[in-house]
Amino acid sequence: MKEFWSKRAKALTPYVPGEQPRERKFIKLNTNENPYPPSQTAVAAIREAAGESLRLYPDPECTSLREALAATFDLKPGQVFVGNGSDEVLALCFQAFFDAERAILFPDITYSFYPVFADLFGLSYREVPLDECFGLPLEPFLGNNGGVVIANPNAPTGRAVSLCDIRTLLEGNPQSVVVVDEAYVDFGAQSAVPLIDSYPNLVVVQTMSKSRALAGLRVGFALGNENLIAALNSVKNSFNSYTLDRLALAGAEGALRDRDYLRAITMKISSTRDWAADRLKRMGFAVSDSAANFLFVSHPAVEAKALLDGLRERGILVRWWDKPRIRDYLRITVGTDEEMEALCQALAQLVPEV
Amino acid sequence: MKEFWSKRAKALTPYVPGEQPRERKFIKLNTNENPYPPSQTAVAAIREAAGESLRLYPDPECTSLREALAATFDLKPGQVFVGNGSDEVLALCFQAFFDAERAILFPDITYSFYPVFADLFGLSYREVPLDECFGLPLEPFLGNNGGVVIANPNAPTGRAVSLCDIRTLLEGNPQSVVVVDEAYVDFGAQSAVPLIDSYPNLVVVQTMSKSRALAGLRVGFALGNENLIAALNSVKNSFNSYTLDRLALAGAEGALRDRDYLRAITMKISSTRDWAADRLKRMGFAVSDSAANFLFVSHPAVEAKALLDGLRERGILVRWWDKPRIRDYLRITVGTDEEMEALCQALAQLVPEV
Repeated sequence: MKEFWSKRAKALTPYVPGEQPRERKFIKLNTNENPYPPSQTAVAAIREAAGESLRLYPDPECTSLREALAATFDLKPGQVFVGNGSDEVLALCFQAFFDAERAILFPDITYSFYPVFADLFGLSYREVPLDECFGLPLEPFLGNNGGVVIANPNAPTGRAVSLCDIRTLLEGNPQSVVVVDEAYVDFGAQSAVPLIDSYPNLVVVQTMSKSRALAGLRVGFALGNENLIAALNSVKNSFNSYTLDRLALAGAEGALRDRDYLRAITMKISSTRDWAADRLKRMGFAVSDSAANFLFVSHPAVEAKALLDGLRERGILVRWWDKPRIRDYLRITVGTDEEMEALCQALAQLVPEV
Repeated sequence: MKEFWSKRAKALTPYVPGEQPRERKFIKLNTNENPYPPSQTAVAAIREAAGESLRLYPDPECTSLREALAATFDLKPGQVFVGNGSDEVLALCFQAFFDAERAILFPDITYSFYPVFADLFGLSYREVPLDECFGLPLEPFLGNNGGVVIANPNAPTGRAVSLCDIRTLLEGNPQSVVVVDEAYVDFGAQSAVPLIDSYPNLVVVQTMSKSRALAGLRVGFALGNENLIAALNSVKNSFNSYTLDRLALAGAEGALRDRDYLRAITMKISSTRDWAADRLKRMGFAVSDSAANFLFVSHPAVEAKALLDGLRERGILVRWWDKPRIRDYLRITVGTDEEMEALCQALAQLVPEV
């Protein structure tokens, strides 16, 4: 097979997202979705946009949404780029800022889409090992490189990097772009957005999928200085003029207006995360410090794969990777209090009593 | 400027879509949108999908929509790929089927996004001149090449290619993929879909933006044998797991259910096109035979640019390109009868009486 496939396509190993079950009803703690519904303001805006105007193309420049994001983050609209989920935004960053000749650096344990993007666009990369506690070592990121990509907080560990460390990365890489992927930042890490005006090589990527409970709407965005945003626009306009449909534009703008709701659900999830982490620790789990809406856990007595399977039998989906260094860990999305209670009870059946 | 841009990004000349005016109310005959609203079934399906489930990722495999498309076109779901507008689908085709070493062939006058895709992905291409009447010569497409892309009907000329000619292209290129871009096929050309089971090198790309009046929803699709569709999935899953949001999936499926409405509005637009073409001919315009929802016209006495500007002053937007061979032409989208009447009256003020 693979007749007619391009060489690039033949060589790809695509990213595999977490399961989206279509039949049986599971407690879904496997794809870091928000357990709470999206803002009613967002839903109302979508319903209003669902009408005759769908016959017309959306605004290719997404001006209104970019203005709303600029106001939210105290930036200029020219410092904002929007795309079809932060995966698309990240992919366009790889095309816009990185060249084949110089290796991109990212941690060995991080969002596993980064090496896939690099392969798709024929870019070279080097995975820098995190330390034994999954902390980010700065030194290896400061040498000659073609760009740096880090997730803050990191996935799947949940560990946050300080703004001071981000500054060190930015100052140590004056010749290359540093992409900070802040998909989970609203659950407890410090955003690098306030550094944008000081560092011409900083791009911050965020998404509406997690904290704003809109994974089904596909809206991500990048924030950075106007020169970098112009590069993203140049690539995007060479790929697809209209990456956001009218409903996504309307819904995203609606969600931005509802700041109180964002604050309420992210605080609620953070507090659920913290008690669930305590409960799991008392059951003998090692639980890494998480600033995200998920926990990264391992148990000294039971293999993670056995826990994954046992939870699935009990109607609970979590995420596990058959990969070096993290084979003993599960990533568990923080759901509602009831879901986390059910998780703890199911795990209690799977691990020996302390 | 362009500090930190990748070499690729620095070299790009992005595609420029037709204007989407945000303020003044124009008669918009510039981007080939459908003048009629989308199917009510589509709108109802979107409103129903706008709710709590938006917190969850969409189905990354778009199974339900692919099944609906397969049923519509009498294919198997494995022969269907869906994407965020046919522009994205075409871009993924360029990545999935074409290599840098062998030149892709497409006409010199066609959808101007094709060379942009090729440049973005570092592919070489050769533009084959259409004949003097903008007809497609077959011979130059039959030699050694890295792939063929043709639009049927062609844009911006509106001219259709016969299925017999498509067969010749497919049989003359057993080693390379032939992409037939059928964005406008529902307005009067013959679709190549029935050839899919006979030709393993055929990919047909269509969109919901034109005949189904859903330009604002961003849904396109590719149809071809399962091996080619697998290549598209491989590339897409290395780029963005979820390219269609839940609302687009729901709306597209709703639109497919409403076959009578599709037939009604495409027939209405074709009949409006035909009388408008007659009227323009009687005003002295040369009008190419169009099987699409637009007319490609020129006038022996007045420059196209002057007509473009004169129409704009009169509140009517049409499309013009400052490019060799087509500088004397306007592309005019077929609107409602009232809009085309207004167009004819405005043009009557701009060209000498016959």
